[in-house]
Amino acid sequence: MPRFDHPTETVFTWAAPSLKFGLGALAEIGEDLRALGVTHALVLTDPGVAASGVPDRVAHAVKAAGLGVDVYDNVGVEPTDKSIEEAVAHARTGPWDGFVAVGGGSAMDTAKAVNLLTSHDGTLMDFIAPPIGGGRVPDGKLKPLVAVPTTAGTGSEATSICVVDLLDLHLKAGISHPRLRPQLAVVDPLTTLSVPPQVTAASGMDVLTHAAESYTALSFDARPAFPDASARAAFCGANPISDVWCEKAMELVGTHLRRAVMNGNDLDARYGMAYASAVTGMGFGNAGTHIPHANAYPIAGAVEDYRAEGYPEMPMVPHGQAVASTAMAAFRYTFPADPKRHLRAAELVGGRPVDPDEGAEALPRVLRELMRDIGMPNGISAFGYGEPHLDTLVAGTMKQSRQLSVVPRPLTTEAAGRIFRESLRNW
Amino acid sequence: MPRFDHPTETVFTWAAPSLKFGLGALAEIGEDLRALGVTHALVLTDPGVAASGVPDRVAHAVKAAGLGVDVYDNVGVEPTDKSIEEAVAHARTGPWDGFVAVGGGSAMDTAKAVNLLTSHDGTLMDFIAPPIGGGRVPDGKLKPLVAVPTTAGTGSEATSICVVDLLDLHLKAGISHPRLRPQLAVVDPLTTLSVPPQVTAASGMDVLTHAAESYTALSFDARPAFPDASARAAFCGANPISDVWCEKAMELVGTHLRRAVMNGNDLDARYGMAYASAVTGMGFGNAGTHIPHANAYPIAGAVEDYRAEGYPEMPMVPHGQAVASTAMAAFRYTFPADPKRHLRAAELVGGRPVDPDEGAEALPRVLRELMRDIGMPNGISAFGYGEPHLDTLVAGTMKQSRQLSVVPRPLTTEAAGRIFRESLRNW
Ligand SMILES: [Fe+2]
Ligand SMILES: [Fe+2]
Repeated sequence: MPRFDHPTETVFTWAAPSLKFGLGALAEIGEDLRALGVTHALVLTDPGVAASGVPDRVAHAVKAAGLGVDVYDNVGVEPTDKSIEEAVAHARTGPWDGFVAVGGGSAMDTAKAVNLLTSHDGTLMDFIAPPIGGGRVPDGKLKPLVAVPTTAGTGSEATSICVVDLLDLHLKAGISHPRLRPQLAVVDPLTTLSVPPQVTAASGMDVLTHAAESYTALSFDARPAFPDASARAAFCGANPISDVWCEKAMELVGTHLRRAVMNGNDLDARYGMAYASAVTGMGFGNAGTHIPHANAYPIAGAVEDYRAEGYPEMPMVPHGQAVASTAMAAFRYTFPADPKRHLRAAELVGGRPVDPDEGAEALPRVLRELMRDIGMPNGISAFGYGEPHLDTLVAGTMKQSRQLSVVPRPLTTEAAGRIFRESLRNW
Repeated sequence: MPRFDHPTETVFTWAAPSLKFGLGALAEIGEDLRALGVTHALVLTDPGVAASGVPDRVAHAVKAAGLGVDVYDNVGVEPTDKSIEEAVAHARTGPWDGFVAVGGGSAMDTAKAVNLLTSHDGTLMDFIAPPIGGGRVPDGKLKPLVAVPTTAGTGSEATSICVVDLLDLHLKAGISHPRLRPQLAVVDPLTTLSVPPQVTAASGMDVLTHAAESYTALSFDARPAFPDASARAAFCGANPISDVWCEKAMELVGTHLRRAVMNGNDLDARYGMAYASAVTGMGFGNAGTHIPHANAYPIAGAVEDYRAEGYPEMPMVPHGQAVASTAMAAFRYTFPADPKRHLRAAELVGGRPVDPDEGAEALPRVLRELMRDIGMPNGISAFGYGEPHLDTLVAGTMKQSRQLSVVPRPLTTEAAGRIFRESLRNW
């Protein structure tokens, strides 16, 4: 049978780990690991998350189920080749036949790499996509990996991607393969109660931009047909399944984020945000983000001395702050690609009808109202960037081919420059 | 860490196979099998589906990708212990390291059993739940199983359950285990174009009742807490993820089913129904059905000489006809358990606002309008049942503990009798 003969894509794909969601879900994690065949688990986390006590509670629950368990709490807050190699070296010394990642994207990505490299010979660089790395395809069986996201963030617990900072090369690179995806995500809103306000705010904005970008991304069927299934991009563009969850996530964040930031003990708001984050991974994780996420890489990468409240004492722009900082200008730019979707997004985030005459300003306005209410930094100037940095930022954005492949409106260098300039201050 | 101390459930679970959806998706199935590690696949299908030519197209695509492939087209239309044992005996003789189920629930369920019994020693009866069977838990690794649903029906491609008719015992029994779930569902709306009108109608009503029942089922958090994770029911009750997809499926069926039945070549309508069916499995397959599905077992089981247009020439009540036949009376009965949800369901299926004063009659009314339009049989009297059969039917319903565990309103024997009596004729 020939391939369906059509010049554009006609197929979309979707995949997600199993999910266990609810108050107290974490208490069952030992039983969940046993069901996956694990007898001795290694819990991977970073020092900040370890301080919250959640990894210890995980270890306790695993032990209570009669399984062996150890904790490695030295995951890098921004995973680098160096921090991952250290984690791998440690994991290769022990008897562990399963992994539990506890925390945010750093723990998840590190655990994916550790799982890969304790199941295969070779180095991290062997598996990184060419031209940077060897592009080796994982062909062995990986061990069970359970993800316990604790920040209500973007949902890397559900993706098959591991992003690494290559220190010597000064760039981020990724490994992407379905076998890297965790088998199970355990989401317990109780673990998010102690997340500090500004981490809650940034993580929530990450969920929100992820949803708004996936919703307005190029539709899967507006892309040229891939020559065969293996060439199909892991991020397929907007599609009917993604759309449903993007709408839900935008509505949830609009309803719950302010309350979760203002009062961390508002369990109903924490539940709503944990749910919004879970559906990010489960529902639209593979649609694909576009301009705000493409911009976030150079914004985070070129930071000099910005420090963010609630985060480790080091120069860094938290991912959620980076993506949020150019979202207003980005959606103002993409508005003409699908006015109806942008207006609908504004209604969902704002929680009330929008006058269509407001046009391109509607979504930026509701984002500004939300960001001001939750104390987000005011644009990229807050991170120390000014007019002289714009060329560097634009150049960084134009390299993000994964994101650029699903922009709804072609992004020229000039347009990217305008978006960064408009984003120096958002209000 | 103790379990979260709460008298009712606080946790729900969700799982689904990966999905590839779209026009022509089937052409890539060889590449998909290869990515799962399969070198020689066995395609399982029934004679009716084989006649549609789809299994041959699958085999052709697998061969074109350079893999070995054979077709077994002797799956029982209603899988029995005998038909499954025959399929297993065949599958044990060959070199197959992966399976493809093509068709409806019968092909899926047979493939699950074949996969189990070619990966484990022992008999079907060893694995069937006690007290009927040995209740053995699958502990070995199963082979990859890809599901190709071709009827836009309930989505058994996504479940971990295999239901078998035990001929000598005159009852249906099941095997349920996460390892039985297919790894991938390939849904190609083009395969549904040749489904006959009355099969389209019945399959569509199955999707619709599945959605309406899952939507109105007892909520997961209104059930008593299970003592531990392994005791948690595979069907957890209504939950936030299920709700989203139930609403979507009801809307899709309301929009597309009439058109798909009237004009089988209406590709837009076929696409909508294939999508509705895909989300049945993916989105709410594990919430749980209730009264109409509980009633469907005795309705199908006690049939004497009813024959359905478009189905094999044998006495049978197609599953979709059986579930639809008592749905109006069932939802009239469950209305007080959650009036708002029943009214919302009526709006989604009917495609327009409903006057709240219509109350319990709203959902039955829109179901009746739809069923009359698409030529569904008029109640259980159409299958040959009358007043004298009611006790037998009620007794059969009261044995369906899986469904009864998530009824939104307790079902007494008297109420079950009333529902069957009201369902003798629906208009
Ligand atoms: Fe993100
Ligand atoms: Fe059904």
